[in-house]
Amino acid sequence: MNVSQAVHEMKLAAPQMAATSAEERNRALKYITQELIAAKDEFFAANAEDLKKAEESGLKASILGRLKFNENKLNACIEGYQGLWALEDPVGKVSLKRELDDGLMLKRISVPIGVIGVIFEARPDALVQIAGLCIKSGNCAILKGGKEAAATNRALFDVIKRAATEAGLPEQALLMVSAHEEIDELLKLDQDVDLIIPRGSNAFVRYIMDHTKIPVLGHADGICHIYVDRAADLTDAIPLILDAKTQYPSACNAVETVLVHRSVAGAFLPDLSKALKAAGVSIRGDKEVSELIPVDGELLKEEDYHKEYGDSILAIRIVNDIDEAIAHINRYGSHHTDAILTDDDAAAERFEALVDSAGVYHNCSTRFSDGFRYGFGAEVGISTGKIHARGPVGLDGLTTSKYVLTGRMTCVRDYAEGIQKFHFRDL
Amino acid sequence: MNVSQAVHEMKLAAPQMAATSAEERNRALKYITQELIAAKDEFFAANAEDLKKAEESGLKASILGRLKFNENKLNACIEGYQGLWALEDPVGKVSLKRELDDGLMLKRISVPIGVIGVIFEARPDALVQIAGLCIKSGNCAILKGGKEAAATNRALFDVIKRAATEAGLPEQALLMVSAHEEIDELLKLDQDVDLIIPRGSNAFVRYIMDHTKIPVLGHADGICHIYVDRAADLTDAIPLILDAKTQYPSACNAVETVLVHRSVAGAFLPDLSKALKAAGVSIRGDKEVSELIPVDGELLKEEDYHKEYGDSILAIRIVNDIDEAIAHINRYGSHHTDAILTDDDAAAERFEALVDSAGVYHNCSTRFSDGFRYGFGAEVGISTGKIHARGPVGLDGLTTSKYVLTGRMTCVRDYAEGIQKFHFRDL
Repeated sequence: MNVSQAVHEMKLAAPQMAATSAEERNRALKYITQELIAAKDEFFAANAEDLKKAEESGLKASILGRLKFNENKLNACIEGYQGLWALEDPVGKVSLKRELDDGLMLKRISVPIGVIGVIFEARPDALVQIAGLCIKSGNCAILKGGKEAAATNRALFDVIKRAATEAGLPEQALLMVSAHEEIDELLKLDQDVDLIIPRGSNAFVRYIMDHTKIPVLGHADGICHIYVDRAADLTDAIPLILDAKTQYPSACNAVETVLVHRSVAGAFLPDLSKALKAAGVSIRGDKEVSELIPVDGELLKEEDYHKEYGDSILAIRIVNDIDEAIAHINRYGSHHTDAILTDDDAAAERFEALVDSAGVYHNCSTRFSDGFRYGFGAEVGISTGKIHARGPVGLDGLTTSKYVLTGRMTCVRDYAEGIQKFHFRDL
Repeated sequence: MNVSQAVHEMKLAAPQMAATSAEERNRALKYITQELIAAKDEFFAANAEDLKKAEESGLKASILGRLKFNENKLNACIEGYQGLWALEDPVGKVSLKRELDDGLMLKRISVPIGVIGVIFEARPDALVQIAGLCIKSGNCAILKGGKEAAATNRALFDVIKRAATEAGLPEQALLMVSAHEEIDELLKLDQDVDLIIPRGSNAFVRYIMDHTKIPVLGHADGICHIYVDRAADLTDAIPLILDAKTQYPSACNAVETVLVHRSVAGAFLPDLSKALKAAGVSIRGDKEVSELIPVDGELLKEEDYHKEYGDSILAIRIVNDIDEAIAHINRYGSHHTDAILTDDDAAAERFEALVDSAGVYHNCSTRFSDGFRYGFGAEVGISTGKIHARGPVGLDGLTTSKYVLTGRMTCVRDYAEGIQKFHFRDL
């Protein structure tokens, strides 16, 4: 069976998956956990195979680290599943219950989206986590992992799919796609796939967004800012900026540009510069910044502020006031996560109201933008889009709604002609 | 200034519009109402001009009726605005308030989407209604009306825009686009437009969906079903089906196909057929149906059930059981609104759980699927998509969310290294 046939069968089975009870889905997650533990040696053997190939082809140590699937990674997956079954069921929540008239009751109920395609990077633990989120939320999932992890992913997927089916979920609920060509085939299936969630490099995510009519949830760029206000605590600002830049420089929520209020730039920048240098961070800036502290590389031009470094590099710019900072962020940012450091609550409120980003922070590191840190259990990705889900996407973001209306053989004509009137009573 | 420049300025002004208070937006709506009443003679004169051109070009009476803008239509607009200012503010609602740890507070707040482009049909009252919904929800709006209503729309828009600006809303918050070529220009502005809402013919909506990277909210087809279960009240079913078909045959929520359980087909179809004929409805069916009642036109083939008639034509099909009805609906429907008629609550529950549509109804007419009838005040459209808003889209559908995190110069490192732990306490 080719990918489009398999996905079409999945689409037809999606209502069955959506109609499973929370108990059935939790029971399946528990059974999968048990089977993952039982089969761990298979995974470690498959992973050794992937790692050997990766080393031979000269992949970077950082990628090898993400590719590795060992006892620790398995335990983290198991803990993730235990967290998932403890979470409230995202399906069947009634967000509106309104009596339109006597005997005419409207309810808006959360339901699974249906068929979700997730295309993710090298980490095999991502496959386990994403499959778990989709099962918990009653969705059917098409999973496409990185080719470096092909053997590990196959071993993990086979166990998860077999266990899910044995636990009573529809056989068509999970599908793994492995060949790269199959991504293009998948992107054409807008009749059967409800949502695509790509995770990977900016160029890859942009490719997906540009080549499908299926709605895409995610982000290409993560150009995050920290604005150091004139009322900021300048001493605490330094470790916070270091945290946001160096704790994981390639993360999408790492800071790329620090904006500093002109009135504190002279006092703050020399200390910040020393701390950044000591932490191995390269500083970029325009002429004005370079007159206060040493900067690396060429002086920044206006268009350079659109750039995501994803590395131990930080751009710095001086602004005249908070409104210039807000305008810079709305113009050059990627609407991901931006923070203000200030002890002036009015300034913080202005920043929160006017910065148009998924995460708007006051006195904390941009690195908090993450489903686990928000208490969502896990995330399938972070959305910088404004439609549907914004920010880290957990279980709620994997649901949509359905309006259920119950009447007594009720016709519209009586209301259209004014014989009957709606009374709209929320219950 | 061309459309792309004007839209870019709107995008830059959108955060100011989003930051207006509910009081400012309501005050603007009241002032616009007053100015609309004061300028009514201008609208009627402009409308007379549009009507004259339309008559000369031989437009159908039904279109002329929709194009007409008289005292009654104005009063309905005024009542709509009065309803809007009474509605709760959709902006600034806190849907999540969670203490992640001592001194680290996360809130999810509803915010306007930003820049919304609405392309709508001939009715000038639609312009007034849509502008009102966008203002109430803090969004900037680009409005494109039908060319038949050009003079009326221009007169209405000029008053609304002037009044909104005089009432203190940003000058860039409203823009009207009139030339048809400008639609294609608008569809390319995916950097500045957050959402497109098209209203119009199926072919037109599909054209929009196929020619933009901007998210599109709406529906192309409205293929709605009524399933007459074996436990249906067959007497009351007849007026209900007539209501769903004849009360407004060209509406997207009018029924296109009636599915009848085999065990009641013989008893029910002859009576239904007589009532439909008397109401001037043409019946379509396959061979099996034609053996029970007279059908018009050629016998239906499998692929014909994908068709939306949008006219006084009804397709009828016999099914073996509820599961065959559900499978037919999920396969041939457009996931808009589908109803079951039954006195068997278990059957109704099964139908509600397994039919994958925005509206799933029990014992009522599909024609209830409408923002006004749901008590949303009004709607900008009905979405059959599953991403973002589904069903009638009112004020809530015109918002997205923003995560606001407030800390005490809080860094991620302490949590990543296990020195600090999250406690996730919902407030």
